Amino acid sequence: MRIRELGERGLISRIHRLQSPPPMGFVGIGDDAAYLPSSKHGWLATSDMLVEGRHFRWDWIEPEQLGEKAVAVNVSDIVAMGGIPRGCLTSLSVGGDVDVEVVEGIYRGMARALDRYGATLLGGDTVGGREGIVLDVTILGEPGADKPVLRRGSKPGDRLMVTGRLGAAYAGLLLLQHGVRWPGRNAAERSLLTAQIAPQVRVEAGLALAPLAHAMTDISDGLVAELAEFVRFGGIGAQVLEERLPIDEATRQLAETEKSLAAEWAYYGGEDYELLAAVPPSRLAEARERLDQASVSYAEIGIITDTPGIRGILPDREERNLDATRGYNHFA
Amino acid sequence: MRIRELGERGLISRIHRLQSPPPMGFVGIGDDAAYLPSSKHGWLATSDMLVEGRHFRWDWIEPEQLGEKAVAVNVSDIVAMGGIPRGCLTSLSVGGDVDVEVVEGIYRGMARALDRYGATLLGGDTVGGREGIVLDVTILGEPGADKPVLRRGSKPGDRLMVTGRLGAAYAGLLLLQHGVRWPGRNAAERSLLTAQIAPQVRVEAGLALAPLAHAMTDISDGLVAELAEFVRFGGIGAQVLEERLPIDEATRQLAETEKSLAAEWAYYGGEDYELLAAVPPSRLAEARERLDQASVSYAEIGIITDTPGIRGILPDREERNLDATRGYNHFA
Repeated sequence: MRIRELGERGLISRIHRLQSPPPMGFVGIGDDAAYLPSSKHGWLATSDMLVEGRHFRWDWIEPEQLGEKAVAVNVSDIVAMGGIPRGCLTSLSVGGDVDVEVVEGIYRGMARALDRYGATLLGGDTVGGREGIVLDVTILGEPGADKPVLRRGSKPGDRLMVTGRLGAAYAGLLLLQHGVRWPGRNAAERSLLTAQIAPQVRVEAGLALAPLAHAMTDISDGLVAELAEFVRFGGIGAQVLEERLPIDEATRQLAETEKSLAAEWAYYGGEDYELLAAVPPSRLAEARERLDQASVSYAEIGIITDTPGIRGILPDREERNLDATRGYNHFA
Repeated sequence: MRIRELGERGLISRIHRLQSPPPMGFVGIGDDAAYLPSSKHGWLATSDMLVEGRHFRWDWIEPEQLGEKAVAVNVSDIVAMGGIPRGCLTSLSVGGDVDVEVVEGIYRGMARALDRYGATLLGGDTVGGREGIVLDVTILGEPGADKPVLRRGSKPGDRLMVTGRLGAAYAGLLLLQHGVRWPGRNAAERSLLTAQIAPQVRVEAGLALAPLAHAMTDISDGLVAELAEFVRFGGIGAQVLEERLPIDEATRQLAETEKSLAAEWAYYGGEDYELLAAVPPSRLAEARERLDQASVSYAEIGIITDTPGIRGILPDREERNLDATRGYNHFA
């Protein structure tokens, strides 16, 4: 069935049935606005918009996977502020020719991800668009402590910690561009496609690091671009020990096949949704302990310096400048 | 200049300069998520998506007007819950061929409306889309009291109050469809086009009625559709005295020219963004006084009944059933 035949009311009623009810004291879908009760520490809010043909293609990702990813990338932003996701608003523009199953799949995926991360769909908008799908997801969350953890706040001497692995999401994107489809032909391909299509949010790591870090962010635009945000004010810089970059074997092998440098993918690839934190040396031991307890893999990749600039340090001690302006231009 | 040439960073930096800085204690644009400090009464959140070619056309509305309207329709939802707007997130999908001036105009209009209503742009997303513009605006607000005013809660005997005028936004839409362009050829046309293009949010009326009303909503989908939400639960209904419908002279005259019933436009037209409230008789005098003090025009159009159904009462006492399922299907 097409969206056109089901109509707006029919679609909204199907979407509702897929979602968990809001917690006590919340007001969800069905009123003028959603209501979230008073939180001791305030609220966090973030939005990300995904456009068909630009951010996703239906031959690359299933509707449910897209719904999960749309929630995950926003949850990642809340977690990067040291927060806990609670509520969600989604706006969807959908052409009348789209299959109802596609839209249901997206909302089913969103419901699954929201359940996993402890949040609820509280409202939004469903509108008839011209063609294809544009999905905007807003996640609302509570800070885990008094104050959110910002991108600024790093001090010279802070150690740079990164969760998980870098460059794998970019490697997964390359596989898709080369015609490999989910779930891939072997474990290595599946692992890279997972990084691109179904990123896992570092919720436990975020809560573990938030009370200890001077600054924290998720790595959505590439490590170097995020480091540039860390050192944007206060005349500070960053040094990255290139051999410490957490690049997994599947990513290294694909980089070799592609005659590319895996380190470049880690620096500039983007969409990794790992956490980057600047932790003062005095709290480093506790940070390690907390991450170990949460069973989150991590790497200590470098240090905040008292001189501006972002430099990569090679094993032979040679330095190279990392270019923070390099990155993905959505409009190019 | 086209968006393609300016690039994402250039665009975002231009957009920032148009906005007022966030209030003390808030975290705005530039971090992983926005932060809103603890509010005694919790937070309200609502989103509306506007799609070029479906919700707006550039020969009908200027970019600044669109930006103002996109904020206003969301502020209206916050006000309808008895809230005060504070923060805003906007996501914009824009094709590379769009003029930078158009996007700047939209953000300038949003900034103007946010300033007027006391809220600040705190974040969002700007992405390269396929073509044209999709704009999703989220407004966050604080309830003016302990609890938000919901759509449900009406009791038999409650009086139905409506602010301003009904049907004028639909009349303005008809003018646009007939080729009339802003600002129209005379005062009457300008007044109707204003209702459609530049609706004013009833902030004072919302704050005045919130402590008194059993239920409240803004009239975005037409009076009858909103009444249907009021009486959806609890076996209640509504009676509307048709001669009390607040229809202005310009709307009546256009309806006559069009050989339509102005009352139909008031019942089903939509996009009026006036407030509808169910006020118990014991608080009616105070509601009138508060609205008068706020210089807001209003009409007492009917009553909540203890029998289901929504009925219009004609001057000759004849009744007619009003059809709540009638309305705009976005996907048709």
